[in-house]
Amino acid sequence: MRRLRIPERNVIRIDEARLQARMAALARIGRDPRGGVSRLAYSDTDREARETVTAWMREAGLTPRVDAAGNIIARRDGTDASLAPLLFGSHVDSVPNGGDLDGPLGTLAAIEAAHTMLDAGVRTRHPIEVVVWSNEEGGLYGSRAVSGQLPHAELDNVSASGRTIADGIRAIGGDPERLAEARRAPGSIAGYLELHIEQGQVLESTGTDIGIVLGIVAIYQWEVTITGVTNHSGTTPMDRRHDAVLAGARFVELVHRAVIDEPGTHVGTVGRFEASPGAPNAIAGEVVCSLELRALDTGVIERLYARIETEAKAIAEATGTTFAFSGLIASVPAPSDPRIRGAIAAAARTVGCSAREMPSGAGHDAQCLAPLGPIGMIFIPSVGGVSHSPGEYSTPEAVRNGANVLLHAVLEADRTLP
Amino acid sequence: MRRLRIPERNVIRIDEARLQARMAALARIGRDPRGGVSRLAYSDTDREARETVTAWMREAGLTPRVDAAGNIIARRDGTDASLAPLLFGSHVDSVPNGGDLDGPLGTLAAIEAAHTMLDAGVRTRHPIEVVVWSNEEGGLYGSRAVSGQLPHAELDNVSASGRTIADGIRAIGGDPERLAEARRAPGSIAGYLELHIEQGQVLESTGTDIGIVLGIVAIYQWEVTITGVTNHSGTTPMDRRHDAVLAGARFVELVHRAVIDEPGTHVGTVGRFEASPGAPNAIAGEVVCSLELRALDTGVIERLYARIETEAKAIAEATGTTFAFSGLIASVPAPSDPRIRGAIAAAARTVGCSAREMPSGAGHDAQCLAPLGPIGMIFIPSVGGVSHSPGEYSTPEAVRNGANVLLHAVLEADRTLP
Repeated sequence: MRRLRIPERNVIRIDEARLQARMAALARIGRDPRGGVSRLAYSDTDREARETVTAWMREAGLTPRVDAAGNIIARRDGTDASLAPLLFGSHVDSVPNGGDLDGPLGTLAAIEAAHTMLDAGVRTRHPIEVVVWSNEEGGLYGSRAVSGQLPHAELDNVSASGRTIADGIRAIGGDPERLAEARRAPGSIAGYLELHIEQGQVLESTGTDIGIVLGIVAIYQWEVTITGVTNHSGTTPMDRRHDAVLAGARFVELVHRAVIDEPGTHVGTVGRFEASPGAPNAIAGEVVCSLELRALDTGVIERLYARIETEAKAIAEATGTTFAFSGLIASVPAPSDPRIRGAIAAAARTVGCSAREMPSGAGHDAQCLAPLGPIGMIFIPSVGGVSHSPGEYSTPEAVRNGANVLLHAVLEADRTLP
Repeated sequence: MRRLRIPERNVIRIDEARLQARMAALARIGRDPRGGVSRLAYSDTDREARETVTAWMREAGLTPRVDAAGNIIARRDGTDASLAPLLFGSHVDSVPNGGDLDGPLGTLAAIEAAHTMLDAGVRTRHPIEVVVWSNEEGGLYGSRAVSGQLPHAELDNVSASGRTIADGIRAIGGDPERLAEARRAPGSIAGYLELHIEQGQVLESTGTDIGIVLGIVAIYQWEVTITGVTNHSGTTPMDRRHDAVLAGARFVELVHRAVIDEPGTHVGTVGRFEASPGAPNAIAGEVVCSLELRALDTGVIERLYARIETEAKAIAEATGTTFAFSGLIASVPAPSDPRIRGAIAAAARTVGCSAREMPSGAGHDAQCLAPLGPIGMIFIPSVGGVSHSPGEYSTPEAVRNGANVLLHAVLEADRTLP
């Protein structure tokens, strides 16, 4: 294979027809009668999807292997054997009754980018590795294993498919006993790139082709238990109540107010709200609700939480209730690397796409790679912001744009990263 | 039996030891291992309780029968055969894991009042009928049958005991096929009196011995469905949300504000509040909650509801959601009769008890009797306002006061009512 120098105004393009045909073929594996797909990690359809994409990887000139965590890693050597590999990819498992794009877009665009390079005779300096991370939807299991963030105890967790994580990893060709062998050391990758649908409406509503992800936000979740006194709704005067629903209602408004009072792209949500006993004729003695705060900057989260906790005390006082906060999740933010963002921006210019920087409010495998090397993510618009649903959709044009930007961002990163 | 004229300052008193012994004996039937009693209507323990009180009725000089609806009606003729009977009583069935007083107090105090009259040689002008209403806790089944408010279709309802209402009525000696025979015509009773625990804290907190019930409130209930859009909590900016939990929170505050803005004893409650899908990382697309309003005056309820419905529209507008109200219950209020209230007030004076007028926020069999003749209810303090729970408790002094006031109120009503 001869090496081509890629010109500044390189206009190689991915094969849109091939990419769309593969996306359509993959979407038939685990087709859900309700629409969309149900291709749960470790299930028979997950395995079928993995075999299918493995064959396409070979067609793209890559050499696939499965690591101990069940990730598929398909490599092609670069021209400089001293360089660490450039990784790009996504996942093929889905949520129950999910959409066709979350995972497959990034996976198949990565294979397509490699295939396009093969077709065009483009050889990178760095080795390239197209990756299919295992069990993304269940909790980033494959990518966490690679970065050493998967505690052994979690292997006993039961996945949505009904298998334990350990059995599931075995079912897809991994080896949970040798999980440590899947780990990669910090500095051992030249970079990681992932194309994904936005799963929101920022790009659509602003008419932007490409999102350059500033990073994956930190996610903090608490379970909030509000305790009042259950009592008869008919016999308890208004001024003698300890109404957990009223306290909970004021808490929801407080969270909303605190979050919007501070400018920025951070978000805060009370998605769960359950009143007990939950009868029309009983004042609720307990509410269990969730509090979730997401921001790129954990300082913002800490400031919001401090205000919410303080003002919840005043609500408790006024309603004769108590609040208890129990922390469930406190993930670290995963900022993207400015060099990768620069490569994406350059790629967008090369293929004639508009672009804007934005946080990723959702979690992605990319966040697990951040400790190992520079990461970056490319978003394309989601029509209506719909995701994790059969209604998940991006236009063919958006898909083509995303795959072309991925291709050129990889080539640009190959040129610029050590 | 000779007839005594009861003097103005009559001081006959119920036999406290006998009443307390019977209450203790009844509380052992259906004793719940968790404390309190579980004596569900139509169950074996309900039947045992009914047999036990029937024996006590006979000891009190009454002649019991079971009507087609399974009500026990124990009669003693009066001196004037032309007069309609004076009814008094309550029920013996309980909620699951309920208390010892809700029902048994009124039933055993009624038997005790009749027994005291027998002991003292007191003969009333009116016939007296001590009544044990069947399946009060399941929904006033026995008393509704008597006033013609039990639609035939409800006989197929399944009671808490697992039996249908029809089977249950059969199990306690009634005959659902002949339910119409249990009906009594308007004007066919001289009056109805019921002693009950308050199930609230008004009497306790004001240090009052006796509550003279102004009436049983009207109860209106709605199911309120708030529809927003389920979306990803991380990828949906705050200003693009259609958050049903936020809308629901504002609705709860609105209900509270509307109810307390208007002076009076009416109450309003949102006791049920369920967010769907109910995950910490999903903006809730739906909330189903309850709205309950209770007042003696339905005009108050209508005014409150009009305000709530109007202001909910503004909440819907501001949050990008919709509200749908579905009416579930709209019961009529059952005002007590001023002559019966007067008899209770006179009885309280006779036995040296303080008294105050108050609504009954809870439903009682008495409300079903209101269309048939003048009704009245006597409340005694509930310690801590606790009810429908093993913690339900009234002091022996309060029980004695209540039974003595019932006794003298019946005698006063016997003197004054036609």
